[in-house]
Amino acid sequence: MLLLRGCHSLTRFGPRSIQRHQVVPAVAPCAVRLCSSSGGGGDDQRSYQRSPSLTWTHGLAGLLAGTGAVLAYGLHQHKAEQVDTIGAQSSSLPIFSQEEVTKHRSLEDGVWVTYKGGVYDITEFVAMHPGGDKILLAAGGAIEPFWALYAVHNQEHVLEMLSGYKVGELSAEDRKKQQAVKSSDPYSSDPERHPVLRINSLKPFNAEPPPEILSDSYITPPAFFFKRNHLPVPQVDPASYQLHVEGLPGGSLMLSLQDLKTRFPKYTVTATLQCAGNRRSEMNKVKQVKGLNWGIAAISNATWSGAKLRDVLLAAGYGPNVAQWAQHVQFEGLDADVTGTSYGASIPLNKAVSEDGDVLLAYEMNGEELPADHGFPVRVVVPGTVGARNVKWLGKIIVSADESGSHWQQNDYKGFSPGTDWDTVDFKSAPAIQELPIQSAITTPADGAVVDRSEEEVTVKGYAWSGGGREVVRVDVSLDGGKTWHVARLRTNDKGQAAEPSPPPGRAWAWKLWEVTAPLPTEAQELEIVCKAVDNSYNMQPDTVAPTWNLRGVLSNAWHRVKVTIREDEEEE
Amino acid sequence: MLLLRGCHSLTRFGPRSIQRHQVVPAVAPCAVRLCSSSGGGGDDQRSYQRSPSLTWTHGLAGLLAGTGAVLAYGLHQHKAEQVDTIGAQSSSLPIFSQEEVTKHRSLEDGVWVTYKGGVYDITEFVAMHPGGDKILLAAGGAIEPFWALYAVHNQEHVLEMLSGYKVGELSAEDRKKQQAVKSSDPYSSDPERHPVLRINSLKPFNAEPPPEILSDSYITPPAFFFKRNHLPVPQVDPASYQLHVEGLPGGSLMLSLQDLKTRFPKYTVTATLQCAGNRRSEMNKVKQVKGLNWGIAAISNATWSGAKLRDVLLAAGYGPNVAQWAQHVQFEGLDADVTGTSYGASIPLNKAVSEDGDVLLAYEMNGEELPADHGFPVRVVVPGTVGARNVKWLGKIIVSADESGSHWQQNDYKGFSPGTDWDTVDFKSAPAIQELPIQSAITTPADGAVVDRSEEEVTVKGYAWSGGGREVVRVDVSLDGGKTWHVARLRTNDKGQAAEPSPPPGRAWAWKLWEVTAPLPTEAQELEIVCKAVDNSYNMQPDTVAPTWNLRGVLSNAWHRVKVTIREDEEEE
Repeated sequence: MLLLRGCHSLTRFGPRSIQRHQVVPAVAPCAVRLCSSSGGGGDDQRSYQRSPSLTWTHGLAGLLAGTGAVLAYGLHQHKAEQVDTIGAQSSSLPIFSQEEVTKHRSLEDGVWVTYKGGVYDITEFVAMHPGGDKILLAAGGAIEPFWALYAVHNQEHVLEMLSGYKVGELSAEDRKKQQAVKSSDPYSSDPERHPVLRINSLKPFNAEPPPEILSDSYITPPAFFFKRNHLPVPQVDPASYQLHVEGLPGGSLMLSLQDLKTRFPKYTVTATLQCAGNRRSEMNKVKQVKGLNWGIAAISNATWSGAKLRDVLLAAGYGPNVAQWAQHVQFEGLDADVTGTSYGASIPLNKAVSEDGDVLLAYEMNGEELPADHGFPVRVVVPGTVGARNVKWLGKIIVSADESGSHWQQNDYKGFSPGTDWDTVDFKSAPAIQELPIQSAITTPADGAVVDRSEEEVTVKGYAWSGGGREVVRVDVSLDGGKTWHVARLRTNDKGQAAEPSPPPGRAWAWKLWEVTAPLPTEAQELEIVCKAVDNSYNMQPDTVAPTWNLRGVLSNAWHRVKVTIREDEEEE
Repeated sequence: MLLLRGCHSLTRFGPRSIQRHQVVPAVAPCAVRLCSSSGGGGDDQRSYQRSPSLTWTHGLAGLLAGTGAVLAYGLHQHKAEQVDTIGAQSSSLPIFSQEEVTKHRSLEDGVWVTYKGGVYDITEFVAMHPGGDKILLAAGGAIEPFWALYAVHNQEHVLEMLSGYKVGELSAEDRKKQQAVKSSDPYSSDPERHPVLRINSLKPFNAEPPPEILSDSYITPPAFFFKRNHLPVPQVDPASYQLHVEGLPGGSLMLSLQDLKTRFPKYTVTATLQCAGNRRSEMNKVKQVKGLNWGIAAISNATWSGAKLRDVLLAAGYGPNVAQWAQHVQFEGLDADVTGTSYGASIPLNKAVSEDGDVLLAYEMNGEELPADHGFPVRVVVPGTVGARNVKWLGKIIVSADESGSHWQQNDYKGFSPGTDWDTVDFKSAPAIQELPIQSAITTPADGAVVDRSEEEVTVKGYAWSGGGREVVRVDVSLDGGKTWHVARLRTNDKGQAAEPSPPPGRAWAWKLWEVTAPLPTEAQELEIVCKAVDNSYNMQPDTVAPTWNLRGVLSNAWHRVKVTIREDEEEE
């Protein structure tokens, strides 16, 4: 976990010889506090930061954001390769054998790692590691495979930081052995993606479509559907795929892909998925948060087909007696980190077993088999619920008295007060996000667009959606920052296509696209276009971002605002 | 329906001899537009307005609000009795028999009524009647019984208005006959109420407790529970009471009170009820709306005991096949207007039959039989749903393909855009309010309170609740108008009582009371205290009232704000 603090008081980076809390202006003038975390991903790019004192605010802001991290990755990769020579055996430091290094695998014995032939005692750094004590898994061995998994480490300042902890060189013999173990890139088998996507993080891959594409199709083509991966995309053989269903009285149930397709009725549900971090970039403008710097397009809509989770649970022995002790259904993905920990999440049991919950074990997206990025061969689709619970590459279902114990359920994807910071946060005090609140955004025009006065009117387009099956019933659009309002037309289809049928009450899982054309105000030279949606529980979006700000930058759903300039017609002579 | 319009262009009041749209400054300088409405009550006090030109804005604002109407009623009742002489047979106008009057019962034949011996041709006024064409029911007869039912008419300016339409006198013989028919007050058997209540309307009775009382008890004592009546309180004999259940394949089912208590398991649910108009007074400050001028206390919490509606519907023949054609469950009250039209509402069928919906046919409130004001002997309690659907004095349940056709379901209790006015409103375009949005308010300190600097801190208290069974998970409180925030402590019990057990997911029907104590900011001389709540779908309250404004003044749930002055300690010499 990361926390920005004022520059004046803190630095916790740097070699062990530097006293903590001592300011070292030339090296680490601003601090990032590092809290422990068991997570292996989460909706964040854990970032390491060390930048010259004059530019720290800019650099820090950019780097902590996901896109910033990726940018930094790209910019610094070449330089990082140059400073890789820090590992070269040219110092006067002592020589250690691998056997000696391996003895240092705990805080008591010291935590040593090797990197390109150098030996590093990082004991002091463990408590400051942005990724938490997961760093201990590397103790006594080479750190390269971990950095291959978490590409955020491939930055110059990380290597600089590491160099401060150097205590020796690995023996020539052991260096040769290490080089023989080829370190492979766990992301090398990730699928190809469409270049139109705006990438927030390459490894793991996280990207969103341009907004104007998003609202051009009611059903989002899979290539443009936002991608939200926490780990490398696993390669799953559909022929040998087995889904495990556990925790029910009848014992464990194993289902092949064929079983899922043939033993259970096939249902199709049109459902919008949205990342909890959608529109995080607007919160970042208020005050920096931790996480991928999503724009407004971490949301998409598709038709999903598969077996109902309810049917599978019933086949596995679910009955009313189970509800006496069980309250949650946990999901585990087949995507896993280097320790074998897979992505995990859970949903309330009543959502899972309700006939109206429409939770699918989906094997089709828009009528085709699931693409690799969207969970091939089977994913959970939990309509109305935050994307993070829609576990992809589904490996295991566990009916349980407890929520998933995963990092993403317990210490991530929760909302807090604007007054809560990383010093005061208690993750147990907030519920895991399940249903999402009312949301809408403007996809056209873009912020900063120019409209000619001669056009006389402006057309505004966007999307609106609410969690929990609550139907969007109205979208209000203002051209004057919220003083006066127009009511937008809503639609549930693409031009020329039949509209989606009206959903039963409480089962409105799909978004609505909207559009309004209004005359350009004669007086205005600039428009502040604003949208706000209302669902059938009459929940509305909050007016402004700052009071919704939270340290994880989730649940960003204030009125969306774009500014547009009106270009006056040129006078002709 | 009422609409305020600009003073410059309109007047539609006044006798038929005055041209419409002509300004008559001395009599009716500002207009109230009158739209047709079939309603016989609704969440409004239909108001008639005619005030001197210099004070019209003030008078209009006060009168259109519910409390204003009541105030006006009290102030003007005496005067009204004085001007009752307008009906005296002292003019030179023609004499009509009752038989002649009775011939005028339509717009074609003219619409005549009598009032205290005077004959009035109100044909022109029908289209302008705030209460809609229900006025036609009085055609050809005496208007007194209607005015006894709708006490809002008992105001001087209404009588002045009527006098403009006078066309003759009723014959002496027929006047005697009319006087023999004693006009009774339909509200005469309404129960006694506690004098602490703040009355918004006497007839029908609508009142709320003082806010500081409200938050002093987690379970609201029935005497302090807000009262929301649309019509006189009916006198129901529990021994002969019969509940009709209709629309199911097995035919009609009749249940006595004893049947309800003995044939079905008794359930107890703690549920908060809130009027759709709660906090309407804040919308009135933005721009006048139509309806009772509720403060923040049209909300209360009680334990309700009774049979589950689901169980009764199953006993009456409900089965899965019914859900193929039925979508709503309608309720009719035993309270009725002079035409015999009873109060009515409906809820979605899935809420009614869901095991988790917890809809009760309640015969107890806080462990005692229902008080008369709260629906004795049986009312519906629809947890999580707007008060208006929790029909009191329940007479009939109808399973149907259609929503209730009642005024209150179709043309009232719906939300609209701030840009929608009475000229453009289409009631069919908005869904009937069912689940309510997230809500919270500050009960202590009161707006305008003074805190001594020497106290060093301030304690803020209030309530928070959300509709649809969504649990309140956090309340943020600010002392500086929303710049910085404190997190309040939530509680679900009274001091010394056990806390309510945590509700199952989606079944959090009861409010939470909250409290926070924070240091007085050293710099501030005035505090703007603000609260905002968050539910477990992470819906939040909007920041400001104006963008939530709607012509009916419902769903007022912006941040609640109170201003408090800090009194500096006096210097001692």
